[in-house]
Amino acid sequence: MSTKISGALHSDEAQNLAEASAKAMYARDAATQALGMTIEKVRPGYARLSMVIRPDMLNGHASCHGGFIFSLADSAFAFACNSRNQATVSSGCSIEYAAPGLLNETLSAEAVEQSLTGRTGIYDVTVTNQAGKLIAMFRGKSYRIKGEVIAGADATA
Amino acid sequence: MSTKISGALHSDEAQNLAEASAKAMYARDAATQALGMTIEKVRPGYARLSMVIRPDMLNGHASCHGGFIFSLADSAFAFACNSRNQATVSSGCSIEYAAPGLLNETLSAEAVEQSLTGRTGIYDVTVTNQAGKLIAMFRGKSYRIKGEVIAGADATA
Amino acid sequence: MSTKISGALHSDEAQNLAEASAKAMYARDAATQALGMTIEKVRPGYARLSMVIRPDMLNGHASCHGGFIFSLADSAFAFACNSRNQATVSSGCSIEYAAPGLLNETLSAEAVEQSLTGRTGIYDVTVTNQAGKLIAMFRGKSYRIKGEVIAGADATA
Amino acid sequence: MSTKISGALHSDEAQNLAEASAKAMYARDAATQALGMTIEKVRPGYARLSMVIRPDMLNGHASCHGGFIFSLADSAFAFACNSRNQATVSSGCSIEYAAPGLLNETLSAEAVEQSLTGRTGIYDVTVTNQAGKLIAMFRGKSYRIKGEVIAGADATA
Repeated sequence: MSTKISGALHSDEAQNLAEASAKAMYARDAATQALGMTIEKVRPGYARLSMVIRPDMLNGHASCHGGFIFSLADSAFAFACNSRNQATVSSGCSIEYAAPGLLNETLSAEAVEQSLTGRTGIYDVTVTNQAGKLIAMFRGKSYRIKGEVIAGADATA
Repeated sequence: MSTKISGALHSDEAQNLAEASAKAMYARDAATQALGMTIEKVRPGYARLSMVIRPDMLNGHASCHGGFIFSLADSAFAFACNSRNQATVSSGCSIEYAAPGLLNETLSAEAVEQSLTGRTGIYDVTVTNQAGKLIAMFRGKSYRIKGEVIAGADATA
Repeated sequence: MSTKISGALHSDEAQNLAEASAKAMYARDAATQALGMTIEKVRPGYARLSMVIRPDMLNGHASCHGGFIFSLADSAFAFACNSRNQATVSSGCSIEYAAPGLLNETLSAEAVEQSLTGRTGIYDVTVTNQAGKLIAMFRGKSYRIKGEVIAGADATA
Repeated sequence: MSTKISGALHSDEAQNLAEASAKAMYARDAATQALGMTIEKVRPGYARLSMVIRPDMLNGHASCHGGFIFSLADSAFAFACNSRNQATVSSGCSIEYAAPGLLNETLSAEAVEQSLTGRTGIYDVTVTNQAGKLIAMFRGKSYRIKGEVIAGADATA
């Protein structure tokens, strides 16, 4: 069924696998669901998620608790690095804040794969609000573990 | 009422201020409350919080979503760096994961001030589970802004 | 001499200032000189430097000591964040390694400003070898201090 | 020759191995030598190095170029994570600066192992000057590769 060219997956197939992996992951990711995140787009090595800042996400300074901005970025990172159906976890991340997130704003997190060598990868995630203003920059390091997101649906399926 | 010795606050007063600041912050920190966090201890430059991993905190790998481990550490960091009643925010953080957090585990985050020069500080937060196992290490950079946690309750009150 | 439009510097002037700032900084930056770095290009918020890996830069694993890869990235970051003639220092950085640097390779570090709000900025630096292979990704946080790189050569000169 | 107790190396042997590994690494680490670093102490999972700030280590702000403070911390990290004679490299690091380093100051970097699980570890390095003032805090992530520092001198030798 697959059309491998020079060892790479055919683009359509890779895209289908990315979408199926995202769907399967989302279905069992209670945290991402409970935080009201929406998957806007997913491609091999890429994901874009959005989330509205709710009242229960505000901290004592009346802006979005850093943990929720981080969570949005972290989920985008997770969907991007699991988009090839190979189970992958985070080994560490950093986040820098550029501006506070405010109540009812819609934040978008765009995760882009920067490097993938062996089992480890580097992903950059940019978090912006609905006006395109930069809210935070996140960098995640991934580590591929054993197993697949969708058992059996591997690259040669 | 205060007993300043060599420019430093008397210890009891600093401790009272730390506790009052924590109480005031917690009361208006919807996020920390909604995540079920408990403040175990607070001192000037120090805070220890705990949180039970709930089903809605699990990710697609059936372990605690990194965002919630980060949130716990980030809250401990926030309570530690606001413990002197000077409004302080996070400018950036990093987290390294050592082991996954599992359902129903109680995580503790202990934040310790490492450096405070001018407006900026460095805080290390160690996250462990109820068995004392290391789950994550977090490092936060703080930035003091204008204002106080409890208006008027300053160092010379 | 200047043509300020809507509060922004005219492009030619900003470019001239970036080049003059870089020249002045380089002249007094013994470290960057001693490491044999070359400034390939500088623009407002941008710098590209290169460096050849010398025998005295190798570590016990016969690859470039991380400190020198970091130094190259850090210098590119410094030239980028001082390119507007406002004295700016680093408050912290992170680096992730993608591949080792080898003897006699020419490394290039390209620093790009990602955010600049108030006194603080975020810069991403990508280090590659002469074949374009990714060696490391660096992220620096800048903090503007008092003073200028070239005293008197400010934005309205 | 070894006296393994409950799977752990006898303390004297582990210490001897740490010292022998450090000696072997230093002998082939041109970078650490060229920067004038001295190994003050090494133990399993621990190393303390010192370095005098030379004129050729100053940047354009007349303080120590961040790359050299990083290099000192990075070398201490390398000696600590290779102290069990298992070849280990850095996968990434972060550094936060607390104060500038000045000409002729002697900086010390103390690296302490915080976590070691499977192939990966976390090490914290504190850099201080001769007066004990905090200069920088560094955190390194290690990754064990194949091979030993001293071939054949393994844990059961």
